[in-house]
Amino acid sequence: MGVSVRRFKFSSLVIGLQAIFILVLGLLAKYPSRSAYAGNHGNSNSSSNSSDGHGGESTVGSYNNFQDVNVMIFLGFGFLMTFLKSYSFSAVGFNLMVSVVSIQWAFIVKGFIHVDILGGDKFSIGVGDMVGAEFATATVLISFGAVLGKTSPVQLLVMAIFEVFFAQLNEHIGVDKLHVRDLGESMFIHMFGAYFGLAVTRVLYNPEVQESEKEGSSYHSDIFAMIGTAFLWVYWPTFNGGFADDDQQKERAFLNTFLSLCASSAVAFALSSLLDKRGRFDMVHIQNATLAGGVAVGAAAAMPLEPYGAMLTGSVAGAISVLGYKFLTPKMSQVLNIHDTCGVHNLHGMPGVLAAIVAAVAAAVSKHWDTEDRAAI
Amino acid sequence: MGVSVRRFKFSSLVIGLQAIFILVLGLLAKYPSRSAYAGNHGNSNSSSNSSDGHGGESTVGSYNNFQDVNVMIFLGFGFLMTFLKSYSFSAVGFNLMVSVVSIQWAFIVKGFIHVDILGGDKFSIGVGDMVGAEFATATVLISFGAVLGKTSPVQLLVMAIFEVFFAQLNEHIGVDKLHVRDLGESMFIHMFGAYFGLAVTRVLYNPEVQESEKEGSSYHSDIFAMIGTAFLWVYWPTFNGGFADDDQQKERAFLNTFLSLCASSAVAFALSSLLDKRGRFDMVHIQNATLAGGVAVGAAAAMPLEPYGAMLTGSVAGAISVLGYKFLTPKMSQVLNIHDTCGVHNLHGMPGVLAAIVAAVAAAVSKHWDTEDRAAI
Amino acid sequence: MGVSVRRFKFSSLVIGLQAIFILVLGLLAKYPSRSAYAGNHGNSNSSSNSSDGHGGESTVGSYNNFQDVNVMIFLGFGFLMTFLKSYSFSAVGFNLMVSVVSIQWAFIVKGFIHVDILGGDKFSIGVGDMVGAEFATATVLISFGAVLGKTSPVQLLVMAIFEVFFAQLNEHIGVDKLHVRDLGESMFIHMFGAYFGLAVTRVLYNPEVQESEKEGSSYHSDIFAMIGTAFLWVYWPTFNGGFADDDQQKERAFLNTFLSLCASSAVAFALSSLLDKRGRFDMVHIQNATLAGGVAVGAAAAMPLEPYGAMLTGSVAGAISVLGYKFLTPKMSQVLNIHDTCGVHNLHGMPGVLAAIVAAVAAAVSKHWDTEDRAAI
Repeated sequence: MGVSVRRFKFSSLVIGLQAIFILVLGLLAKYPSRSAYAGNHGNSNSSSNSSDGHGGESTVGSYNNFQDVNVMIFLGFGFLMTFLKSYSFSAVGFNLMVSVVSIQWAFIVKGFIHVDILGGDKFSIGVGDMVGAEFATATVLISFGAVLGKTSPVQLLVMAIFEVFFAQLNEHIGVDKLHVRDLGESMFIHMFGAYFGLAVTRVLYNPEVQESEKEGSSYHSDIFAMIGTAFLWVYWPTFNGGFADDDQQKERAFLNTFLSLCASSAVAFALSSLLDKRGRFDMVHIQNATLAGGVAVGAAAAMPLEPYGAMLTGSVAGAISVLGYKFLTPKMSQVLNIHDTCGVHNLHGMPGVLAAIVAAVAAAVSKHWDTEDRAAI
Repeated sequence: MGVSVRRFKFSSLVIGLQAIFILVLGLLAKYPSRSAYAGNHGNSNSSSNSSDGHGGESTVGSYNNFQDVNVMIFLGFGFLMTFLKSYSFSAVGFNLMVSVVSIQWAFIVKGFIHVDILGGDKFSIGVGDMVGAEFATATVLISFGAVLGKTSPVQLLVMAIFEVFFAQLNEHIGVDKLHVRDLGESMFIHMFGAYFGLAVTRVLYNPEVQESEKEGSSYHSDIFAMIGTAFLWVYWPTFNGGFADDDQQKERAFLNTFLSLCASSAVAFALSSLLDKRGRFDMVHIQNATLAGGVAVGAAAAMPLEPYGAMLTGSVAGAISVLGYKFLTPKMSQVLNIHDTCGVHNLHGMPGVLAAIVAAVAAAVSKHWDTEDRAAI
Repeated sequence: MGVSVRRFKFSSLVIGLQAIFILVLGLLAKYPSRSAYAGNHGNSNSSSNSSDGHGGESTVGSYNNFQDVNVMIFLGFGFLMTFLKSYSFSAVGFNLMVSVVSIQWAFIVKGFIHVDILGGDKFSIGVGDMVGAEFATATVLISFGAVLGKTSPVQLLVMAIFEVFFAQLNEHIGVDKLHVRDLGESMFIHMFGAYFGLAVTRVLYNPEVQESEKEGSSYHSDIFAMIGTAFLWVYWPTFNGGFADDDQQKERAFLNTFLSLCASSAVAFALSSLLDKRGRFDMVHIQNATLAGGVAVGAAAAMPLEPYGAMLTGSVAGAISVLGYKFLTPKMSQVLNIHDTCGVHNLHGMPGVLAAIVAAVAAAVSKHWDTEDRAAI
């Protein structure tokens, strides 16, 4: 009986949410207006980026960059979490399920935040909003990593609904009210998602689950996880820089992120081997700590960190992340009863904090530089 | 002896076909003319999209979108069919083999249909034609899904040769003579491929094969299949909208397809759980029915369905698809002797029919809207 | 003790290299100058391709093409080498490790070659340089294929450091001094990488290693390898043509590479079946020889080979490659003590030689054609 109740609970929750999404978007969402495409009759993906504030603006030109993020969400996060041999299919399946709900919900939450709905306005949704909805979803997927294997689909959905709302509100306050610069969303996505997930896993803490034999990877599940790692690694520069304001900021963000990832990967390999008695690489480090450079450089990605600054940031992030997996994660589980399945604290939490520090320092240092630079145009 | 005959049969068929392709394309195909690139000396991928009918036209600007489709053909379809544990390698291997033959053959078939070969003309092939050839190949790969595990490579190739020809002829009559609008090719590719494949599998029906122990998935083969699912899901908006006429139609098609996929995935998860006694997800539904929204919205992708229309379409498609897997596929096998290995009827057949209905309704409803809208420019 | 020495050796080597990279790039590298973005205030990825030699030049417009190459390096090469069941994780892990070191080192080597460092200049690094660094890394990854399973991480890194240097020097002499045209880098990357790797594997030859039971694939490891094959196949046209001078050369290179790959795949399937007693496909041929067409057409990719010329090239390459795997590789191991784990001689070596021949013939034949063609503008 418990089982049949559970299946009705899940399916009615999802169908109910889907009905609400259709209703609300039906009432409040519309396509970008025709004027967004004015003066653009070619079939180019890119020629329409007149987003310099001329009233209507089309974001169809960033579609190819959106697709990189799209792969990160469904392939990257999905496969990164397949490493547990008993949850491989759940990981990639639940990842898809929770993403499609979060994305639709994020359109609505963002619409309410950014448009005067009560005043009768509608919000237009296009490619740029698809990017925004997937960024919001990334927050949820990071938290999912902390609770993987310990939550039912229903719990996961409830978490997603709340988290999208609070994360967007947090970002709205940070960006629109406090004017925090966080291009790669290191703080608003990675830090928020990690600590939100840690809080949830603390609440759900159950010593028996942790004892279970189910936790453990197999040789093949570890290779599946590398599909996720590789796609996140490869497309991270797009995540951090693909939607920057202009070409110079984009190119800087691409390069900074790429260099930071290279450095964090090199340091992760070095420390992983150094900390193992037999000098072997720990697969968990390779799957995760190699990516820490992408998080740590995110907030300052478009700033003039200079190549060495980006590489230093990545090196520190890779080191913090491996050390966290080795020493901090076991302690957090034993002492604080915080069981972090994928170690999101090491990949998203601490590198997210580092990102905030880097951005603050870079902003202070570059203020002078920036002024001079602009004067020189 | 039977074996050695078989290997000569396959290899001589392929080498013969390849020789014919070289000969025919050597005589009849040429590069896009130089004038297609006039006034474009940059190295941009996108700046040459002067496809508004100025004589020669270059399609190199849609190369990045072509690559999305390219991934769908070789990774998406290839891995989606790996779910059968005894045919995983055959699935992805045969998928490559039949694709490279179908693509080359499609260049020729399309050339004969669209150019006055007998009058001495040559057909020029470029990036746009690479897209067209892969669309034609998708039709064959859908049919392959129906006969997977039941055909020899030779039978598969014979099917491909005939199917590319008839599918292109069918599309030519539909689009060029009857002026049917089917942007995402829901009817000309998905419906055609599904019912063609079902006819072939009916002809090849052999009760013993169906009894075989070989049919069945394993835990790992199911995860390999999710690679295919994820890539098809992610790049489906490009398939439906990447080659639309202008930026507004592109952005609409991207958004409609994305929303429809989200809705069909959510409903597929809900129904899959609801229909299982223990409330668990059926992996076949997750691998396939999540994609039904992409098919169902295809024909009308660029029409002003409005977000709620796209989501409704996807919801219905997800439901039809899961119900088909659960109830219709077993019946078709038992009663009609139609054994549909991958369930293409549920993913491409019925959602393709739904797409035709949606497009007809949308066209009727939007005729009025469209006229007003155009007048307002 | 040997083990603990080994882990210090590896980790101190990597940390030392990373420190040098940070120091050298800190002193000598800078971002592209602001003038590279002059007259471009949109947020387009592509509008800034004014790389016709107007002083500063930005390459951010080729970012989407860079990403295709990025996937080839980390997913393509990484997974192609997972086929050995005992080295699957090493293959994809070491591939990441050696790539991040090679990429950073390549920035420096290329900087020293192309900029007057001693005269006080700095080299600017941007998206175009990220492409260049990954091309240099591809050379190393090809050699890695020859020594897979036989080298320690330290040996691999030492090989990478030397190889990047010599390969870049070789390319510099070939391209800048001797004016060799090799758009797809068939000679400077594929041939060089293959023969460098063969030399290394000859030096490391150890009969006992070759006897080991570890060499051998499993069903699942063969499917993992097909992920690599598929991504290399799909994105090879970008590798050969994505960075050509203008749109016409790009489109030609895309088409030539695509057709050559189709032909080499078809011929590889045909010969693989023909050479097997039972007419079955050899998985190694399917994983590798299908790609030979991409190598063989590389040097001449942008030349007017005509479609039939590209297909002929691919057909010959596919045949050479399968024959090499079947007859030459075992002989090289037995007679010459050259044990080529992945058969890079068959995929990169001989097809690279073929590429040089094709390019020479095409250049000779097309000289006349080209002159007339240019006159006709």
